[in-house]
Amino acid sequence: MIKIAVDVMSGERSPDSLVLGALEAIKEYNIDIILVGDQHIIQHALKRYPYDKTRVEIVPSTQVIGMNESPTQAIKEKPDASILVAMKLMRDGKTDAIVSPGNTGATLAAAFMKLGRLKGVSRPAILAKFPTATYKYTTVLDVGAIPECKPIHLVQFAVMGDVYVSKVYDIKNPKIALISNGEEETKGTEITQKAYKILKKLPLNFVGYIEGRNVYDGSIDVAVCDGFTGNVLLKATEGMGITIYNLLKTEIRKSIIAQASALLMFNVFKQLKKKMDYQEYGGAQLLGVNGVCIKTHGSSTSKDIKNGIKVAVKAVENNVNKLIIEKLKEYDLNKFNWHFWGEEDLE
Amino acid sequence: MIKIAVDVMSGERSPDSLVLGALEAIKEYNIDIILVGDQHIIQHALKRYPYDKTRVEIVPSTQVIGMNESPTQAIKEKPDASILVAMKLMRDGKTDAIVSPGNTGATLAAAFMKLGRLKGVSRPAILAKFPTATYKYTTVLDVGAIPECKPIHLVQFAVMGDVYVSKVYDIKNPKIALISNGEEETKGTEITQKAYKILKKLPLNFVGYIEGRNVYDGSIDVAVCDGFTGNVLLKATEGMGITIYNLLKTEIRKSIIAQASALLMFNVFKQLKKKMDYQEYGGAQLLGVNGVCIKTHGSSTSKDIKNGIKVAVKAVENNVNKLIIEKLKEYDLNKFNWHFWGEEDLE
Repeated sequence: MIKIAVDVMSGERSPDSLVLGALEAIKEYNIDIILVGDQHIIQHALKRYPYDKTRVEIVPSTQVIGMNESPTQAIKEKPDASILVAMKLMRDGKTDAIVSPGNTGATLAAAFMKLGRLKGVSRPAILAKFPTATYKYTTVLDVGAIPECKPIHLVQFAVMGDVYVSKVYDIKNPKIALISNGEEETKGTEITQKAYKILKKLPLNFVGYIEGRNVYDGSIDVAVCDGFTGNVLLKATEGMGITIYNLLKTEIRKSIIAQASALLMFNVFKQLKKKMDYQEYGGAQLLGVNGVCIKTHGSSTSKDIKNGIKVAVKAVENNVNKLIIEKLKEYDLNKFNWHFWGEEDLE
Repeated sequence: MIKIAVDVMSGERSPDSLVLGALEAIKEYNIDIILVGDQHIIQHALKRYPYDKTRVEIVPSTQVIGMNESPTQAIKEKPDASILVAMKLMRDGKTDAIVSPGNTGATLAAAFMKLGRLKGVSRPAILAKFPTATYKYTTVLDVGAIPECKPIHLVQFAVMGDVYVSKVYDIKNPKIALISNGEEETKGTEITQKAYKILKKLPLNFVGYIEGRNVYDGSIDVAVCDGFTGNVLLKATEGMGITIYNLLKTEIRKSIIAQASALLMFNVFKQLKKKMDYQEYGGAQLLGVNGVCIKTHGSSTSKDIKNGIKVAVKAVENNVNKLIIEKLKEYDLNKFNWHFWGEEDLE
């Protein structure tokens, strides 16, 4: 039986609704749940809903890391924080996965500290789903774990993204690309160029460089970049969404007819806002740490927690981490000469 | 009298409309014009419009670099290309500025080859205006000239951006920021961190790091980054705009009421599209080359060429390049220890 630990304390919403999301997931995905957090708050919440008592366990924690706390400092000062307690359960094999709506930096730091890296992975990555004009999403990694990457990190991100997207999103032979400042092979930095040359040699569906615009056009499945670029892109996407929404509002206010029409288009705008809100896409896994950690957005509702659990179950059922280790072993990236300068050095 | 050379051949539209834009600028800005391109085509276009013959000169060129040609190769193979002929006029002091709607890479390469760098500038930069939800724009540089930057390049970009935005867009004491993966001083890469420390010491209105989202919220005037990040951001902005437009269309098509309402909101969508189209914001200067080169977008209309000429006139009248040289001399960036690691090394 798959067991999922949910950190119900670290989100922006009340633990009540997060507990509800976890309880709803029990039946839907046939799993056991560990609720991590303030015992009294959790027990109080549990009284409000019917649930199967044999499938729920409470693991108490007395501290919480807030959204705006400095990750490294908070982790030092709050050893009993819910996210750290959850990570310890993962480390000790008492849960198969963790779902948390908390501070991304703290979640990453806690995972790194308690779980360490997955065998063969040099650096972990944070993965995020970006909206496109089609029904697909584009998975981008890294969006902020590692601001400065070496070529081998980018190649490992591609391998991890390939496994994750195939197994968790059921995309067969996903198209993988490197984000760059142009599509030609001569573009990019020294780092992306080296990663490009190695990626061409691996048995991945690597399609080469893409530009920033292609992240949103549905032409690829996995976009790989360093955490600096990925974070700027993630935040820019969020900012653009808000800006366009505000511009629409401003323009609409200029005319009575537009105002009336906009009312009739309420659903259209609601859908658009939902589609553009990067926080809506459910949980994103921290890839490359020795455990399954799904980070849902800070203002997660019960539904978001349930979605996060769904992603966690898929990652566990499909042995995503085991597959990543196997693939990295199979590709044996160390056999390549990472100090090459010309094509000939690669052989 | 200010004289502006217009490359009327390199755009996606007919040279006719570009000639018209140039002719209209003569009266409006009280300038002389040099039209660079195929003599017969230009003469044919000139027959269609009334203009003051004493203020227009034709400088013939027999070749054109296309939008999709490789810049370096095209420049080698087409020595009489209109953009190269225009650059030679600039180099030889026969014009005060160049306006061209051509291939950005080719324009940059031609400028670099024929004009060289401005005194004190290590690397040129391409500047672009980004839309915000307010009436302001955010000026970002570099958006693609130099993918890999050293700290001193970023600092020079900030100095150039400060002068440009003050003088050409009349923004007093512009707010300058470095784009990063977080607002805290500890974020960024080794390169942005060094640039940050030096920028704090210069007499600029430097506000520190911003995240990708702040590019669109109107909170700052100049955002500095390397050409890799800037290009990804520029293309992402373009891609997001197109995606949101297409999403809106798709959602609207789902309902008859929404379709009818959307018709009534035609102007709203038109304004939104215009605001989000990064190509609409007139010309962007190549900063840091020894001349004034305004690059308008590829599908420039007569109006866009006129706007580009307006920007060129402002840059010339306000001695932007001379001021950049003076500021760089005044700030004497070489006095800093660029190899420092800690705060104490800076003094």
